[in-house]
Amino acid sequence: MMNYDKGKGELQNWLVTEIDFDTRFQGKCETIFCQGNGYMGMRTATEERYINQVRDTFVAGTFNKFDNNDVTELPNAADISNIDILIDGKLFGLDKGSYTDYHRTLNLKTGEVTRAFKWKNEEGKAFQFSFKRFISFDNLHLMAAEIEIKALTHSAKIRFDSGINGQMSNSGAQHFHEGEKRIFDKKYVQMLQQTTQSEITFIHNTAHSVTLEGTVVSSRFEMDRRKVFMIYSSDVEVNQTIRIEKISNVYTTRDKELESLSLEKLREYSIEQLKSACKSGYNTLHNLSAKVWAEKWKAIDIKIESNNDFNQLAIRFVQYHLLIMTPAHDNRMGIGAKGFSGEGYKGHSFWDTELFMLPFFTYTQPQIARSLLEYRYNTIKGARKKAMENGYKGAMFPWESAWADDGEVTPVWGAVDINTGKSTKIWSGFIEQHITSDISFAVWQYYQVTGDEDFMNNYGYEILLDTGIFWASRLQWNKDKKQYHINEVVGPDEYKEHVNNDAFTNYTAYWCIENAIHYYHLLKVEKPGIFNRLDNLLKLKNEIQELEKKLPLIYLPQPNDNNIIPQDDTYLSLTEIDLHKYKNQEHVGSLFLDYSLSEVNLIQVSKQASVVMLMYLIEHKFSPEVKKANYNYYEARTLHDSSLSLSTHSILANDLDNRDLSYSLYRQATSIDLGLNMKSSDHGIHAASLGGIWQIIVCGFGGIRMVGGRLRIEPKLPKEITQITFPIYWKGNLLEIEVNHELLKVKNNGTETVTFSNGEKSFELKRGMEMKI
Amino acid sequence: MMNYDKGKGELQNWLVTEIDFDTRFQGKCETIFCQGNGYMGMRTATEERYINQVRDTFVAGTFNKFDNNDVTELPNAADISNIDILIDGKLFGLDKGSYTDYHRTLNLKTGEVTRAFKWKNEEGKAFQFSFKRFISFDNLHLMAAEIEIKALTHSAKIRFDSGINGQMSNSGAQHFHEGEKRIFDKKYVQMLQQTTQSEITFIHNTAHSVTLEGTVVSSRFEMDRRKVFMIYSSDVEVNQTIRIEKISNVYTTRDKELESLSLEKLREYSIEQLKSACKSGYNTLHNLSAKVWAEKWKAIDIKIESNNDFNQLAIRFVQYHLLIMTPAHDNRMGIGAKGFSGEGYKGHSFWDTELFMLPFFTYTQPQIARSLLEYRYNTIKGARKKAMENGYKGAMFPWESAWADDGEVTPVWGAVDINTGKSTKIWSGFIEQHITSDISFAVWQYYQVTGDEDFMNNYGYEILLDTGIFWASRLQWNKDKKQYHINEVVGPDEYKEHVNNDAFTNYTAYWCIENAIHYYHLLKVEKPGIFNRLDNLLKLKNEIQELEKKLPLIYLPQPNDNNIIPQDDTYLSLTEIDLHKYKNQEHVGSLFLDYSLSEVNLIQVSKQASVVMLMYLIEHKFSPEVKKANYNYYEARTLHDSSLSLSTHSILANDLDNRDLSYSLYRQATSIDLGLNMKSSDHGIHAASLGGIWQIIVCGFGGIRMVGGRLRIEPKLPKEITQITFPIYWKGNLLEIEVNHELLKVKNNGTETVTFSNGEKSFELKRGMEMKI
Repeated sequence: MMNYDKGKGELQNWLVTEIDFDTRFQGKCETIFCQGNGYMGMRTATEERYINQVRDTFVAGTFNKFDNNDVTELPNAADISNIDILIDGKLFGLDKGSYTDYHRTLNLKTGEVTRAFKWKNEEGKAFQFSFKRFISFDNLHLMAAEIEIKALTHSAKIRFDSGINGQMSNSGAQHFHEGEKRIFDKKYVQMLQQTTQSEITFIHNTAHSVTLEGTVVSSRFEMDRRKVFMIYSSDVEVNQTIRIEKISNVYTTRDKELESLSLEKLREYSIEQLKSACKSGYNTLHNLSAKVWAEKWKAIDIKIESNNDFNQLAIRFVQYHLLIMTPAHDNRMGIGAKGFSGEGYKGHSFWDTELFMLPFFTYTQPQIARSLLEYRYNTIKGARKKAMENGYKGAMFPWESAWADDGEVTPVWGAVDINTGKSTKIWSGFIEQHITSDISFAVWQYYQVTGDEDFMNNYGYEILLDTGIFWASRLQWNKDKKQYHINEVVGPDEYKEHVNNDAFTNYTAYWCIENAIHYYHLLKVEKPGIFNRLDNLLKLKNEIQELEKKLPLIYLPQPNDNNIIPQDDTYLSLTEIDLHKYKNQEHVGSLFLDYSLSEVNLIQVSKQASVVMLMYLIEHKFSPEVKKANYNYYEARTLHDSSLSLSTHSILANDLDNRDLSYSLYRQATSIDLGLNMKSSDHGIHAASLGGIWQIIVCGFGGIRMVGGRLRIEPKLPKEITQITFPIYWKGNLLEIEVNHELLKVKNNGTETVTFSNGEKSFELKRGMEMKI
Repeated sequence: MMNYDKGKGELQNWLVTEIDFDTRFQGKCETIFCQGNGYMGMRTATEERYINQVRDTFVAGTFNKFDNNDVTELPNAADISNIDILIDGKLFGLDKGSYTDYHRTLNLKTGEVTRAFKWKNEEGKAFQFSFKRFISFDNLHLMAAEIEIKALTHSAKIRFDSGINGQMSNSGAQHFHEGEKRIFDKKYVQMLQQTTQSEITFIHNTAHSVTLEGTVVSSRFEMDRRKVFMIYSSDVEVNQTIRIEKISNVYTTRDKELESLSLEKLREYSIEQLKSACKSGYNTLHNLSAKVWAEKWKAIDIKIESNNDFNQLAIRFVQYHLLIMTPAHDNRMGIGAKGFSGEGYKGHSFWDTELFMLPFFTYTQPQIARSLLEYRYNTIKGARKKAMENGYKGAMFPWESAWADDGEVTPVWGAVDINTGKSTKIWSGFIEQHITSDISFAVWQYYQVTGDEDFMNNYGYEILLDTGIFWASRLQWNKDKKQYHINEVVGPDEYKEHVNNDAFTNYTAYWCIENAIHYYHLLKVEKPGIFNRLDNLLKLKNEIQELEKKLPLIYLPQPNDNNIIPQDDTYLSLTEIDLHKYKNQEHVGSLFLDYSLSEVNLIQVSKQASVVMLMYLIEHKFSPEVKKANYNYYEARTLHDSSLSLSTHSILANDLDNRDLSYSLYRQATSIDLGLNMKSSDHGIHAASLGGIWQIIVCGFGGIRMVGGRLRIEPKLPKEITQITFPIYWKGNLLEIEVNHELLKVKNNGTETVTFSNGEKSFELKRGMEMKI
């Protein structure tokens, strides 16, 4: 069972607490208590082992390809989280004996996970256990853990087996060559391993300090293949406490800031770092990390006053996870679709980043948003190669992206239809092409919100222009209709494969070309230096004619007599079935218990927001009537089988004044990971959904939108929420925004005047000033 | 706790029974209850999973090399032994709830493992569980398992999750590419995987039949990476029994008898085989296998009457394991040093085969002995290559041998000295050279015992001659002493590295050369055709001069004034320490808690029989006085840290009339795996020790020896043993031998007269006759 402990005082609404332990539901807290710092992350499997645990540690950007049948993925690194505890020679586990006063808590404020309980073994000996662990945000390579066990009723022999275990794999795929093992000073354990194809060496170090009432407990070691463990054992008398502190770090030869070091030097450096960390000890190290967390929270914290404290906790949970999963330290790395919380999606970046998570960074931590977009820029060579290989021009971004050099990494073959024995082809890597628009849009959105000219000059314009060039080359001339079409795609609704003129794809492609033309002319006049460089690179002068000639001839699906924009050429003519059963499903994907994917392709049913997503993205292109009609039409046909769907629908419902539906969809979105379904998070966190929740709060309820390059603040709170206070940056100016049912308060803490609209009116807010509307 | 159930009636002394279950000691029964049929073998991990289980399945000869840092090893194949049992949604495990009437039994007569107990879950619901499983000796590709669960007190939802799991690895090393998964007729599950370097495709098939009181329970499937599982779930009312039968097979593209089939055809064939097996069902399939077991036992069973039934059980345990671990079906394969019972020694063949296990086959199943020696012949190219690379001539057999083409596969680097960080070099692959003599000796022994001229003509003579040529080229001329020396070797006592003139090595090298010279002249005269072929191949006429010139000049360490033959040039001058503590050690290797290997090199202490081994092997070269003196000297200095040591010492003690010591060492040997030390077998069975135990019984107590080509039968029973009856073959004639303290009875069931000696006398026993001495 989960509980949302409101906490007390400073910790009110900062704690997520598990109040009972059930081995069946380990996946839940492994995922939602995941710890990390963007450099690395770890599922929070318990220190002791249980059947069906999933113990994963990932270091961002260290992609490796197991073999030619596989695509590159983030390898599951050596584990340091397991500490076996033996009481009188028997492995401790909560599934044996009995326990009381159990709780396990993730502290969102500091990133620490704690756990405590009283446990009685089968012989009736009682012990008080307490655990702590964190991954440092102060030193990105550092993790630490502490266990204390107090003998309450009897003396006992207590033993800890702990070290580095490199026998881990990604569900059987072993990404590492075994490397050297070493112990320095009988304390500092080092193990190396190297990825088999990308040849990245990982250096794992760990050291323990085990004390019984302050007296050092001595150790011996045991070595196995890919494994070094230290063994500490001591008799513990009644009322005595034995304590183990385990401090560990990991470095890799992919680390940007240490690139210049030889492997030998890096090994030495890493051990020196560990020694110095050990001198500080758990508490000091934790305080240093907590300090960095405090700074981060100061910049992003959102206050929500509502009829339910859960709302406050939920937005913090969202922001906690968005922070720990994002490799803000290195612009060669993107966000994995499950962060570091599971092997799912192999650590690859999807459109999830640009359309769901990026707005959080763009509006609150523009330097991180910039790093993430620079990552996309770093993949542009692969995007050009992909375009060329497909007979197109410009930049055709990979549907799934890993290391920049890897290019398209979407698996070609998916789940085997094990009845026919044939693998299902995954079409997304070939024809889910809107990712290119999504990236282009995110670049433009970032630019409009931040005004970061430096980014645009170095990376942004190139992306905007080259994605326009791609789309122009992608268009297909329809002789009969005398229009440019885009055929054979998968749109955001992945239940419709091989469709023609997917509305989302056509509209955003149009947008890309139009935007490219706009910046072509702008650069030519205003930034001739940059224009010339890009012209040189992209042959802009040749391309512009093509873009300008084709743009007005692109077919943009128009609203029909009922104001419905057809999702694609055939959607509106497909069979309609009673979706009631599936709309009320307990588990996502229930449709497939009754229909195969090829059958689903022929039904008016959608996995997720598609036309609705379009109306959120380019909202000023559609009238309120059209939005309403389409929302009602498509919402009724959308199963939200993708976790990306609910947030968009929630925001649009709010836009259309259906506040109850909006709030209900928002609550559904928050319960995907933080709800009472104990199995929904087994494979990892729903990262894009978290980004979507942030958008519901800030862009939906809070009403923050960039529309056509301008800031609009038009809050609409659901009745359940009394007030929201949050910070955003607009063109580098920090705005503090407070929204309640009576008024909107905006304070400009920046250095320049900020202009924004609200309703029909436009406002200018000078620096240092506050305005109530 | 283990128990040696005497069984009743037909099963008396055929059952090994575990009478309580303890997760700490899972390794014991996983190993000693290991099942197999020479084609494949499996550690007997329980169907349900526990922490620290080791679940291994190996198929003989399917070696693969994970990477260049590793040597080739037998890969841990996909698992079919795990069946998760969920009771009311919770994973069943004996470490939860409570149980009574527990037993798990290996039936040595039929190879079946059964398990049964009553179990009550934490809610108080009671169930009767019973399990059966076997690996077929009738169809080498087949395994089957059955579970029955009866609800005793309450109804419950019972679920089985079972299928094929290819996420297995060798302690993290993944030897397989993921292959195709498929389900035929919603029942027959097929999964392919291919070894990464040797490119052997494994085809795993499994099918279930699940019934509730005879009614079929329906299924669904779940698929994961490298994994397909079927899920069967049903409500079970009080007194109802739910039953799952799981029948599985495995084929590989290395299978000799099916080599001509394409992969596609092999897949089809394997599924057809499975379908046909499923029609038969568990009981029929088990009966077919048990029939083959019965034939096998008929040919090899030894009856031991003694003061302790354990003796009878122990010899059957030995023979059971020797049968299941030996790939008798394929002469391209040898016996792994741990059989199929663990990852230890990587499935490689050592001298363990020739000197410890082979006599069992040579004397009782000569066709299997021949296959094992043909395996060595198949490695002779690698042996010649090894000789050449080391600057020698002839055949220098690899210390460790895997697939014939692999050549020497001893790992070069062993355990890291994790204090200095330097890997310990494993010298055996370079300088433990007596393996070449051991193989040569075994060939000759096989020939003398069986008289198999066909084998000799095709393989045997070539080995005898080429090993002689090797040793002649290996000799080093010592100018001062005007002798040929053999310097820089490791002898059988691996606690002495880089020694000169190791007695075992020098004497057996001398023997090889002498024997080669003998057969040179014999072939030249008696088998000119073969002589010419071999002369052509080995340039015999050139080599013979070398051999004959060098032989008399080889230094053979002679007994000193105390009749002691120096184990090597320096042994007798090394430091002597008080070994009392280590002689009485609880766990082997205790010496290394006090001394490093380089220190041990300087102490008069031996890991295992070396001079003593020599005096067993070439017994007629040493006088009883010399034997006795050396036995006493070296036994006192031998820690038996190798499980290969005790049996040789037991036999020699018996030879020297120290029958109590002999019996005591024999009992020690039997308790290595079958004793009460619950941890000693964790890494796998001690295969050579098992072979040694057979030799104690037959060659020691039973007195069967081939000495200088002649059969000698000179039994000496310990007082604890009343009578031993056993079969052996001599030159193809089956002898039935009965030994007790009063007389020796020999019956010749063969077709020719058999000559043997006993004491000073020689006897001739005509076919069909029985003789009492």
